[in-house]
Amino acid sequence: MKQKLKIVKIGGNVINDKNALISFLSDFAKMSGLKILVHGGGKRASEMISELGLKPKMINGRRVTDESTLEIVTMVYAGLLNKNITAELQKNNCNAIGLSGADANTILAHKRIVKEVDYGFAGDVDAVNADIIKVLVNNDLTPVFCAITHDGNGQLLNTNADTIAAKLAKGISKYFEVELIYCFEKLGVLADVNDEATLIEKIDFISLSFFKKEKIIVEGMLPKIENCFDALQSGVAKVIIGKPEVIIDDNLKHTTLTL
Amino acid sequence: MKQKLKIVKIGGNVINDKNALISFLSDFAKMSGLKILVHGGGKRASEMISELGLKPKMINGRRVTDESTLEIVTMVYAGLLNKNITAELQKNNCNAIGLSGADANTILAHKRIVKEVDYGFAGDVDAVNADIIKVLVNNDLTPVFCAITHDGNGQLLNTNADTIAAKLAKGISKYFEVELIYCFEKLGVLADVNDEATLIEKIDFISLSFFKKEKIIVEGMLPKIENCFDALQSGVAKVIIGKPEVIIDDNLKHTTLTL
Repeated sequence: MKQKLKIVKIGGNVINDKNALISFLSDFAKMSGLKILVHGGGKRASEMISELGLKPKMINGRRVTDESTLEIVTMVYAGLLNKNITAELQKNNCNAIGLSGADANTILAHKRIVKEVDYGFAGDVDAVNADIIKVLVNNDLTPVFCAITHDGNGQLLNTNADTIAAKLAKGISKYFEVELIYCFEKLGVLADVNDEATLIEKIDFISLSFFKKEKIIVEGMLPKIENCFDALQSGVAKVIIGKPEVIIDDNLKHTTLTL
Repeated sequence: MKQKLKIVKIGGNVINDKNALISFLSDFAKMSGLKILVHGGGKRASEMISELGLKPKMINGRRVTDESTLEIVTMVYAGLLNKNITAELQKNNCNAIGLSGADANTILAHKRIVKEVDYGFAGDVDAVNADIIKVLVNNDLTPVFCAITHDGNGQLLNTNADTIAAKLAKGISKYFEVELIYCFEKLGVLADVNDEATLIEKIDFISLSFFKKEKIIVEGMLPKIENCFDALQSGVAKVIIGKPEVIIDDNLKHTTLTL
């Protein structure tokens, strides 16, 4: 039987608030069993871009990564955030090891092909090195991934953290029974984004097509959920979407996705 | 019998010159056997401090690390440099894994005690976690250390890269026959720093006291060499000081330190 492993993804809402981050990391350290953390970038990279007199460039809600932007996100995501998160987890007796996709060749990607938009040094994930991740977690280490990958040819690439979490989950599901937990600011998937009473507690493949048809799940949330179902279809056992506290509070409502 | 392992330390002269760095990393990747790379920071951190409108503060040739400086060196050393070096080694088929001392709790330090000078968030190394480093190298990984450590209580610390190399060498010598190689801009220890013909090819404990008494080895070089002898006395097999090319060119002259 496969060992259970949880992959938790946190984004800007936790990263940007120092107290929220410290509290989350204390909770994460308490989670029993094998685990991996994936963190997004938050607003520190955009602040740094402004401090250096440059301008953050976004198209369709995605960052365009020119050469200076890549330098800055590499510094902020792989340096400042990743190492401070790792040190904080160590303080909480969680033996964290901060990684980019270049480290131990864990995540290989390619520079996004230019179609209508040139996203610059944005990476689309090709492969996850499950073998070395298995070695790390079996030696009681907790990998902490930032959203930087590489192309195997010396080029670092800025990569969406949600995607990294899903690809990692898929990639290591050959060795582990993986539960993928996306933490964000809401209770879960809401039929009305402004009303937590409209939480959809369970979504399966059949209800998803209904929610899509009725346009209950739209825009920003839809690609995320389709990513999750892709992960489920590739062997990931379970996907949860909820508030950060969901990682230690079994009674906190959330959305569970299953096939 | 212990396995052989080489620890190579590079500093500013290699880091600051993109072509020199790429050439060095190609050589380093070719080195056979177990190996670890330790890299200094170079001038990029000072440039970044200036670009952000701050001023690098040095006392006695050592950087004073206030809170913003610590942020910047963490970004530049652990992010920008460490991940680009790692990606470049991956390109050269060397399975590098970039690490700070916080990662896998590899290097524990304490904030330097304030005597005459307050160096701020500068770290003095207390312990090296040889067990986890052994796991990594025995799984064909090549650790690449930047000069950032942690105190185990959530605080990152800026640490001298020469010291990190020496402490790593000492710490893992219980498992490995360690050769420590310091790469810098000269052929080795020179009696006259401006004349490579005055290279001192071998220094042992007896000749060291002679060179000290005669003031042939002074100032900047003396603490480095005393660090090296400390490492030798703690079980490190051999220490070499030379140009970066010394790692693959057996015929290149250099200084060898032995007890």
